[in-house]
Amino acid sequence: MRYKIILEYDGTDFYGWQRQEKQISVQQVLEDTLFVCTKEHPVLFAAGRTDTGVHATGQVAHFDLEQQIDPFQLQGSLNALVRPHKVCVKSAEIVSDEFHARFDAQKRRYIYKIQNTKYPPVLNVNRVCHFAKHLDEGQMQEAANLLIGKHDFSTFRASECQAKSPIKTMDSITVKRVGDMIEIELMARSFLHHQVRNIAGSLMWVGSGKWTVADFKEAFEACDRRRGGPTAVPYGLYFMEVEY
Amino acid sequence: MRYKIILEYDGTDFYGWQRQEKQISVQQVLEDTLFVCTKEHPVLFAAGRTDTGVHATGQVAHFDLEQQIDPFQLQGSLNALVRPHKVCVKSAEIVSDEFHARFDAQKRRYIYKIQNTKYPPVLNVNRVCHFAKHLDEGQMQEAANLLIGKHDFSTFRASECQAKSPIKTMDSITVKRVGDMIEIELMARSFLHHQVRNIAGSLMWVGSGKWTVADFKEAFEACDRRRGGPTAVPYGLYFMEVEY
Repeated sequence: MRYKIILEYDGTDFYGWQRQEKQISVQQVLEDTLFVCTKEHPVLFAAGRTDTGVHATGQVAHFDLEQQIDPFQLQGSLNALVRPHKVCVKSAEIVSDEFHARFDAQKRRYIYKIQNTKYPPVLNVNRVCHFAKHLDEGQMQEAANLLIGKHDFSTFRASECQAKSPIKTMDSITVKRVGDMIEIELMARSFLHHQVRNIAGSLMWVGSGKWTVADFKEAFEACDRRRGGPTAVPYGLYFMEVEY
Repeated sequence: MRYKIILEYDGTDFYGWQRQEKQISVQQVLEDTLFVCTKEHPVLFAAGRTDTGVHATGQVAHFDLEQQIDPFQLQGSLNALVRPHKVCVKSAEIVSDEFHARFDAQKRRYIYKIQNTKYPPVLNVNRVCHFAKHLDEGQMQEAANLLIGKHDFSTFRASECQAKSPIKTMDSITVKRVGDMIEIELMARSFLHHQVRNIAGSLMWVGSGKWTVADFKEAFEACDRRRGGPTAVPYGLYFMEVEY
């Protein structure tokens, strides 16, 4: 039986999604809890492997079990037993054996959150990136529009990225201000390693006036990571949703 | 010189606003930090004394210093030195010696946040009340409307409340759903002890169908705390704003 689960987690205390030898990961915590619930040792496959500190409200994963368990009961047991780790199962269902959380994903949605205030975040500590200088969201949106469509995203690609090609198609980017918060929302079928954080870092340079939109365009068209802005901090990033 | 400051804090790690002998409070942390910054021992007066676990995004306080310090500099020093405590000064200004944070307040605004999901809060842990059963926000709003205006609020008044009278005037209450979150927003000149949390507890009974709007009305009109619903947990409550 193949099971599909949707997950929320606070990335702060995890060393990312992927199981590691010596440090705690979301995958390990969930696989260990699944063993407690089922006495089986399933391997979890996620739609996207988030980095240390990155949050999720809609990560998707699948795994196989020999036994058939009511998904709603499995969800309840997992949520009760996974505590105190900051992860929970928002929904669970049995799916076709053909379903693959990573390869079948048609759209991924991320949001990058920036608290744009002179004072530091308190209630939002570890939940947002803090930027003290005023950000012009209109300029950020103008620069973001340049990324829409199919492009070479090498300027925003981490050197460790394992993707075969730097060519990706960005479906949409919107930069929205709600009071003191700026949210950058990105949709694409798939993303390069650190692509969202590298885009966010460069957009903050545009928003603060360090770069003009033309500077951003030039850097983007150079297809060279050394020409891009900094990698924005992980804890502003949320993996929101996957469409299949 | 009298200074007015606007404060944000995470109530989780504090035993409320008010200074206590053996436990950490927001007042103590700020007064101690003010001493480090100024070598003076001012006493802080707050617009409202929040309970353990209650958050603030717009608490107001005033204090007096012999010396005149640039408020923006004072804000910066306080924010730097108050760490790692989860409180920050959002703004600071010099005001008239007549200003009083508590007695001059004309309107206070609170929000009570409820995460209405089958699964427990993760990113919002300690930031919201969790209610698993579906809440009907329309019924909650209908009940809330009964509270608007000048009434005897004894049904929603804590037994330890020190106010002279249980008569208060509620300016507005709105119950709003945004996705899985329900927010109850309340405005009044002043509130009784636990009034917001006691109202929230009873409104959740209405929302879940345990009470009809008529049951709520009857309990309210009984003017008796024993007839009211439970006191909702403190960590769903936010002291948002004070108007002068």
